Amino acid sequence: MNASTSPHGPGPQSPTRLLVLDAEPPPRLGRLTGRVQIEHADATTLAERLPYADVLLVWDFTSDAVRRAWPGGGPRPRWVHTASAGVDHLMCPELTESDTVVTNARGVFDQPIAEYVAALVLAMAKDLPRTWDLQRQREWRHRESQRVAGTRACVVGSGPIGRAIVRTLKALDITTALVGRTPRTGIHGPGELDRLMARADWVVSAAPLTQDTYGMFDARRFGMMQPSARFINIGRGQLVVEEALAEALRKRWIAGAALDVFAHEPLGPESPLWQVPGLIVSPHMSGDTVGWRDELGMQFVELYERWAAGMPLQNVVDKKRGYVPGH
Amino acid sequence: MNASTSPHGPGPQSPTRLLVLDAEPPPRLGRLTGRVQIEHADATTLAERLPYADVLLVWDFTSDAVRRAWPGGGPRPRWVHTASAGVDHLMCPELTESDTVVTNARGVFDQPIAEYVAALVLAMAKDLPRTWDLQRQREWRHRESQRVAGTRACVVGSGPIGRAIVRTLKALDITTALVGRTPRTGIHGPGELDRLMARADWVVSAAPLTQDTYGMFDARRFGMMQPSARFINIGRGQLVVEEALAEALRKRWIAGAALDVFAHEPLGPESPLWQVPGLIVSPHMSGDTVGWRDELGMQFVELYERWAAGMPLQNVVDKKRGYVPGH
Repeated sequence: MNASTSPHGPGPQSPTRLLVLDAEPPPRLGRLTGRVQIEHADATTLAERLPYADVLLVWDFTSDAVRRAWPGGGPRPRWVHTASAGVDHLMCPELTESDTVVTNARGVFDQPIAEYVAALVLAMAKDLPRTWDLQRQREWRHRESQRVAGTRACVVGSGPIGRAIVRTLKALDITTALVGRTPRTGIHGPGELDRLMARADWVVSAAPLTQDTYGMFDARRFGMMQPSARFINIGRGQLVVEEALAEALRKRWIAGAALDVFAHEPLGPESPLWQVPGLIVSPHMSGDTVGWRDELGMQFVELYERWAAGMPLQNVVDKKRGYVPGH
Repeated sequence: MNASTSPHGPGPQSPTRLLVLDAEPPPRLGRLTGRVQIEHADATTLAERLPYADVLLVWDFTSDAVRRAWPGGGPRPRWVHTASAGVDHLMCPELTESDTVVTNARGVFDQPIAEYVAALVLAMAKDLPRTWDLQRQREWRHRESQRVAGTRACVVGSGPIGRAIVRTLKALDITTALVGRTPRTGIHGPGELDRLMARADWVVSAAPLTQDTYGMFDARRFGMMQPSARFINIGRGQLVVEEALAEALRKRWIAGAALDVFAHEPLGPESPLWQVPGLIVSPHMSGDTVGWRDELGMQFVELYERWAAGMPLQNVVDKKRGYVPGH
């Protein structure tokens, strides 16, 4: 591949030029051998390589390199796939307005994340963090814990992840309400969020990060929650005003919280969030179960086969909205 | 009440003499006011008060005072109720052979304990104990965790607690096998335990403590489990050979364990169990959710109403077997 190669539309015999944003080759792409010519890029080389790619696979989904490189000059890939559920890290106006199709990893993370949320709900109800503290101190201290059956959850975000969370919490006999952008059967609209949050024992944030959802969990909303209620964010860090959550916990407006995602990741050792009372901090791992990279690789291969055959792609992101519209 | 009172069979106008083994009055007995004359006993006074009681309510179920006091001289209560699921702490040959009816708190703990087991399973699958360690060290370290859906559990003990655990684990899409004393539809007999333990990802001990079950989880059985498997005991401490479990964990025969019950409770600060690698220690609290004492009190009142009306009691323990036979 060199600058004299036409950047788009290889002939039927030419291999597809696949640019992968990551230092390491993704797993499970072996089936594409001979049909795809893979090149790797990182944040510093992406801009210069972008014009020569037919397809961009955003494997390092923690990077915002695409958003920065995309507006530059030259042709652009016709298809961008990100190995993540959220697309906030790559969207920019130039990409939104282009003809390029954007797809995401919808489906891979649903069940793992739902289990992770259930793990957090049960751990908080059963006071497990305190149990670990007491075990370290070799101290036998019996406490009463809480039943989760019969409690109420409000899940914000009606995509496949939010819906999987609802299914799993319902299986534990938790009464759930699902809030989405567009009210429809079984889904409450944003206008009902305040009311539902005020009566929930568990508020779970699973929304995509968009202009509408940025900072939606703020001091006003935490102040509206019950003092016995807990808040969980497995969506995107910027959905939450982190300092407002820390204050709500310090002032005991709410009983506890768990954050798996943060405005700035990785969270540095200097962050005050590590030590907020009642806050569980985990390193953006809710969806990442053993084998997840293989699943993401296989999902890309499946999408590639459709693309190469000229079939419509699945998991196509509505670039204006910033997520794959639901049914 | 004095020594000249006939110890049994008060006339229809006489209040029932209810002896409560506990320093504090149980909650929710108000409905019995005027019909019941309550006296309290502790381990030192039980033997002398036992002959003057119509009914014994074992409210302090951590005490083995009944087993020690029962064989003494004099009449005995016609009915003993224990505010616990297990009856191992009170049974002795003299009580077994007597006409006294023994009832237990069957039903109160089922759902809370099932939730607690689900909390432990999910916490271990999602590596939450390590997450807390890392949080304390302010260290961001991403790990892959495990899906619980599709894993296999073997639940030992086919009473209402074991069955509730099975229901809850199944709701999380865990494939479960239930092992009981008597094989019947949906329940495997003891002869299948080894085979089922050898293929399980989760082994849950929820059996009553009897001569047959004492020490049933020993080095041989831990050695049979998969290296990736975990063991959970919420039944009784003596079901497990604790030192064998500690060794199995130290030698990595199995990946983890959680004990909520112990051969000697409370566990003293000198116990080596607090620091066994991969072992979660909690203070016999799996069934004790907020309001549990009220539920136990109300359950006793309901049973009392049946007893006073001459109706057959529920939750009647088969004293020879040591538990309430199932259907």
